[in-house]
Amino acid sequence: TSSGVFLLQMGWGDLGAFGEPSKETPNLDQMAAEGMLFLDFYTANPLCSPSRAALLTGRLPVRNGFYTTNGHARNAYTPQDIVGGIPDSELLLPELLKKAGYTNKIIGKWHLGHRAQFHPLRHGFDEWFGSPNCHFGPYDNRERPNIPVYRDWEMVGRYYEDFKIDLETGEANLTQLYLQEALDFISKQQASQQPFFLYWAIDATHAPVYASKQFLGTSQRGLYGDAVREIDDSVGKILKHLQQLGISENTFVFLTSDNGAALISAPKQGGSNGPFLCGKETTFEGGMREPAIAWWPGHIPAGGVSHQLGNVMDLFSTSLSLAGLPPPSDRQIDGIDLLPVILQGKLIDRPIFYYRGNELMAVRAGLYKAHYWTWSNSWEEHSKGIDFCPGQSVAGVTTHTQEEHTFLPLLFHLGRDPGEKYPLSFASEEYQRALEHISGLVQQHKATLVPGQPQLNVCDQAVMNWSPPGCEKLGKCLKAPESDPKKCSWPH
Amino acid sequence: TSSGVFLLQMGWGDLGAFGEPSKETPNLDQMAAEGMLFLDFYTANPLCSPSRAALLTGRLPVRNGFYTTNGHARNAYTPQDIVGGIPDSELLLPELLKKAGYTNKIIGKWHLGHRAQFHPLRHGFDEWFGSPNCHFGPYDNRERPNIPVYRDWEMVGRYYEDFKIDLETGEANLTQLYLQEALDFISKQQASQQPFFLYWAIDATHAPVYASKQFLGTSQRGLYGDAVREIDDSVGKILKHLQQLGISENTFVFLTSDNGAALISAPKQGGSNGPFLCGKETTFEGGMREPAIAWWPGHIPAGGVSHQLGNVMDLFSTSLSLAGLPPPSDRQIDGIDLLPVILQGKLIDRPIFYYRGNELMAVRAGLYKAHYWTWSNSWEEHSKGIDFCPGQSVAGVTTHTQEEHTFLPLLFHLGRDPGEKYPLSFASEEYQRALEHISGLVQQHKATLVPGQPQLNVCDQAVMNWSPPGCEKLGKCLKAPESDPKKCSWPH
Repeated sequence: TSSGVFLLQMGWGDLGAFGEPSKETPNLDQMAAEGMLFLDFYTANPLCSPSRAALLTGRLPVRNGFYTTNGHARNAYTPQDIVGGIPDSELLLPELLKKAGYTNKIIGKWHLGHRAQFHPLRHGFDEWFGSPNCHFGPYDNRERPNIPVYRDWEMVGRYYEDFKIDLETGEANLTQLYLQEALDFISKQQASQQPFFLYWAIDATHAPVYASKQFLGTSQRGLYGDAVREIDDSVGKILKHLQQLGISENTFVFLTSDNGAALISAPKQGGSNGPFLCGKETTFEGGMREPAIAWWPGHIPAGGVSHQLGNVMDLFSTSLSLAGLPPPSDRQIDGIDLLPVILQGKLIDRPIFYYRGNELMAVRAGLYKAHYWTWSNSWEEHSKGIDFCPGQSVAGVTTHTQEEHTFLPLLFHLGRDPGEKYPLSFASEEYQRALEHISGLVQQHKATLVPGQPQLNVCDQAVMNWSPPGCEKLGKCLKAPESDPKKCSWPH
Repeated sequence: TSSGVFLLQMGWGDLGAFGEPSKETPNLDQMAAEGMLFLDFYTANPLCSPSRAALLTGRLPVRNGFYTTNGHARNAYTPQDIVGGIPDSELLLPELLKKAGYTNKIIGKWHLGHRAQFHPLRHGFDEWFGSPNCHFGPYDNRERPNIPVYRDWEMVGRYYEDFKIDLETGEANLTQLYLQEALDFISKQQASQQPFFLYWAIDATHAPVYASKQFLGTSQRGLYGDAVREIDDSVGKILKHLQQLGISENTFVFLTSDNGAALISAPKQGGSNGPFLCGKETTFEGGMREPAIAWWPGHIPAGGVSHQLGNVMDLFSTSLSLAGLPPPSDRQIDGIDLLPVILQGKLIDRPIFYYRGNELMAVRAGLYKAHYWTWSNSWEEHSKGIDFCPGQSVAGVTTHTQEEHTFLPLLFHLGRDPGEKYPLSFASEEYQRALEHISGLVQQHKATLVPGQPQLNVCDQAVMNWSPPGCEKLGKCLKAPESDPKKCSWPH
């Protein structure tokens, strides 16, 4: 059975099926109607790089090294000057799937490090079309190079130069390129009758948001909605392609997102986390609860709904299970195999851990969530207009100082209070009972935790994408400045 | 064609189909899947009595008299000591439907006045089972009588005495009584082959929230969710009954709500307005945008979605249209006939007016909404913990003083910004263009507005439900105190 993972960059509330009021995602809604909707599905981190590392390793960022210790409880990712990336010691899903004869392709944003040793084709992927970093820019190629776009081992151009993104109009045809790549890859695999793993990690809804000309101005929601519509259309075309090729019953598809909608970019470039608190960068529900749909015609009953607490790391374990492979036994794997949930409607008891850096900020077990630390961002950042919770303010919860609650955690019942507005009374029996349960889980978790070497501590302008492989053929090699490694600055 | 109106007391975000994360409304979701979902549907007022008066008259509360002038921009309703009610001069939907041979029944809360002249059977209904006021209580029958429950012309008991509501456990079997009444009425009408209008105005989700024993503890959402589940189950049974009797294709059913979820009652007794700002009592989207579903098998295509700006007043005009009756021509009707929208997918250009008392607080046209006045509630109330926007705070928008913006309205684009968090820049061309359009509509509206005599100004302890008709037979007549009419106090 082949696997397809569609990794979006949208919020829980961005899909019609999840209550977005414009309801402009007919294809995603149809996918949900034909498959199974996960309402309690999480990412492993409120930021993109660590979530992606977690998805592909099945392990929490604190284990696989995708975190920083430069400051307390800081989010970190892989900007161009990051020195680190995915360690060779980590086993990635595509590496393992190769043993079962899979062909693995990544389309879109890699984000697990851009230096040579971190190249996705060195970590199990057979093919790549996309970029190592976010499509930020344009840059001047002197202070900072434009981000390269790779085909397999070599770059084939750079954003803003060869792959245009018009920041004025928001026009870029990248999603169409990524769509075509997916369709072609699927056709090729179908022809060769080889199982495949397709990781479609498109980034049109990440600021600077873009959409193809034919989608510009089509949404009630502005440019962000245009990008959502194009992604919706693309997903619909890919699923239809699987059906037309007659391989949909042999292809397990899962769609989810790497972090909550970036409310700092709203309203023009930011999405919706529905009824949840705050967004990307935070460990409130808006930062980490994600839209999620499993689709596998003939196997998953149509119209199913699951309250299984799920996590992007489960896609690692589930895809291995589909391939008939055991998970690695020499290391802690945090993902679980979702097939019993999806095929037999089981509910597996497991907690969700919400980290910022290497600090365990919160834990969910069942319907209860305990916050051990609360923080949105600093007063200093907030006073500059950087707001991860625009229009939202819950006293003692959306704090602008790092508040420690490790001795008396804030507890919320996410069924009655999905928006994390009403902490349970410390004196209540319900609080005592729920905390006792969660405390046990935390103790167990911490006792066995072996943190990986932090990969996101050191930045160096010399490691930027100055001269990626293939630059010579294109005449696009740039001169790197002197190496000047220093601690990366992670303000939140 | 018969008409059924299910008037709930829930928020936009309380239905699975509208993104409630527990997704516990399978019957309502099924109703939506078989019918048409309205995503931009409104009530006529952020409070129950005026909305109900508007629904049944097809006219804004400021026209039909369901408002107060005791203070500026105050919400008012019909508590037990209200002197006013629906004026005889108003034409109610059931009065008109009678001319087409309809039998009309109201089940549940009337709320259009409880004195003799306001009795629903004097205003077109043929049958009634329910109460004139909210099920508040219990009262001591000395300072204040318990609310009576009527069957047709006479009371058959009182809440907390003959119709138990256990405030400790939340147990009450009232929704089951209301369900059975609906099933019986429909059976009777089907047998007699008479068209009917059924107004099912149940109130289990209104604080004090209640549910029958079999539903208690069944929801992830606590007691409020239990009540929602029971209503969901009941609606499912009523629709199934119509189908089993073979009259579903002759019965147009519309489900909506009378105001946004009461966030002051959250989390135990209050629902969700999804991604919208604030709740009941306010003229933000959370106060007035409502869940809405049209269902009419064989006529409405399954799975439809409409962005028509709709209003509860449209149910007046639509039901008349279904009955082949013209709307009254001697007065301004604010409702529009939704049949072209529902059957032919048309979009009718019309504004939405958001009133508090007789003050026009806001206007929506297309995707733009202009706020002429902003107010949540007073600092004085807020400091006592009365909060209509818990966890939400938008500077200059969710104000605690009545802020006038009539010269420079705050404008929001509800497509990009459904949560009303980002006012458009006053200097933008978009602002100028949108405001010009809305200003024209407001001018036109105000020029032709003839306010009705305000009905909700005077309160008198002597008019309470001391001795409703039928009390003698039950030995439940109480002695009224001296008449002492005074201005009702409306704090928000």
